[in-house]
Amino acid sequence: MRNFKILLTYDGSRYKGWQRLGNTDNTVQGKLENVLSRMLDAPVEVIGSGRTDAGVHALGQVANFRAETAMSCDEILRDLRQYLPEDIGVYAVEEADPRFHSRLSAVGKTYEYRIWNSELPCVFERRYCWVIREKLDVDAMKKAAGEFLGTHDFLAFCSNKHFKKSSLRTVDSFDIQVNGPEIRLVVSGNGFLYNMVRIMVGTLVEISLGQRDAGSIAAVFESRRRENAGAMAPAQGLYLAEVRYS
Amino acid sequence: MRNFKILLTYDGSRYKGWQRLGNTDNTVQGKLENVLSRMLDAPVEVIGSGRTDAGVHALGQVANFRAETAMSCDEILRDLRQYLPEDIGVYAVEEADPRFHSRLSAVGKTYEYRIWNSELPCVFERRYCWVIREKLDVDAMKKAAGEFLGTHDFLAFCSNKHFKKSSLRTVDSFDIQVNGPEIRLVVSGNGFLYNMVRIMVGTLVEISLGQRDAGSIAAVFESRRRENAGAMAPAQGLYLAEVRYS
Repeated sequence: MRNFKILLTYDGSRYKGWQRLGNTDNTVQGKLENVLSRMLDAPVEVIGSGRTDAGVHALGQVANFRAETAMSCDEILRDLRQYLPEDIGVYAVEEADPRFHSRLSAVGKTYEYRIWNSELPCVFERRYCWVIREKLDVDAMKKAAGEFLGTHDFLAFCSNKHFKKSSLRTVDSFDIQVNGPEIRLVVSGNGFLYNMVRIMVGTLVEISLGQRDAGSIAAVFESRRRENAGAMAPAQGLYLAEVRYS
Repeated sequence: MRNFKILLTYDGSRYKGWQRLGNTDNTVQGKLENVLSRMLDAPVEVIGSGRTDAGVHALGQVANFRAETAMSCDEILRDLRQYLPEDIGVYAVEEADPRFHSRLSAVGKTYEYRIWNSELPCVFERRYCWVIREKLDVDAMKKAAGEFLGTHDFLAFCSNKHFKKSSLRTVDSFDIQVNGPEIRLVVSGNGFLYNMVRIMVGTLVEISLGQRDAGSIAAVFESRRRENAGAMAPAQGLYLAEVRYS
């Protein structure tokens, strides 16, 4: 069996997320598996670096699949580009080490979150960001984002109430870039709990609206209680930007 | 009667163009007139600087309407932003000279045309550009674009076969910018015939694919025959960017 690594991007708007649900076709994994299984004339299981939720986008998702085939990577790339819908795009297909596993081999990820913060109309980007008309205090947001840096128990920033494994995660960087009406939050870490980025962003927005104290994050960590963190930011502003391997 | 000038942007994807068609609501003019008529409790006619075709977008369309109302420009702006659909955005509403007419007073316009020229996937921009996988010769395109500069009889670059008025127009600038996989053509002039920008772009693409001689444009002008120019570029890549007044 050969092992293939795929680098891909997708517009998550019309998908119920990454993970295949039964026989339905409206997941990114489902689309990929259906197309690859027909191309290779055998059932193919596609492993993603992680599950993106319904409506979440990817700029650089990584997946892998194992198959017995004589096709070259270029041929697979060409066929994937031909048969996949136009909201799923493949950047590259390469042959990987047999032990490579897109989820288990990952050592870090970067997510981006886009906010449109202006009274000005957001016509072309409206499906791809969180539109907030009320003026956000970006300095307060930047200062509070620093509280996430380092290794913490992020259980309060996880939607899964029954999470039993270690909820310690390390955030390596949390950059906030302002470009006209757009605020882009870029966060990198060794791993992220379920909905962790969206809950961090939602908490930062509450701080930058003055609805929550900038110094409250330490107490939220300590409480380990989801209800003490902010509301979850909408899916349509979130992008899985990069997955890193050692 | 007061005269109001509106600066607006729209995503043309789901509209049958600017111009109202009977009682249908799926034109930009129709949407504006319906919302304004309800806001002002009287029939309102909205005059646009020009008709954009079905699927064509606007970054800076200008329109005006006359109304008897005590509402301030800020109040009209706020209500328009509240009641218009999210694919039509209003930048500004201001009171204009009674003689101001968005079409007849215009002295120049700028259009942009976006091409995605790469094998790389075009996932997020796919509805907003013309995707051309085959490599375009941008140098040839730039050189040929220079042929459009100045005053010419553009009848060959007009879709209206029964056009009876003067088809002399002046193109002031035709810039071609390359940014990664995107080619952006920006053309300014004193006025444009029906489909003129899309036919010029289609002709330039044929030249940059080597399907047409770069020096052919002078002969096309001279022939005054539509069939000698190139095919019309698709609507979804075209943006009305700016309308100028003296």
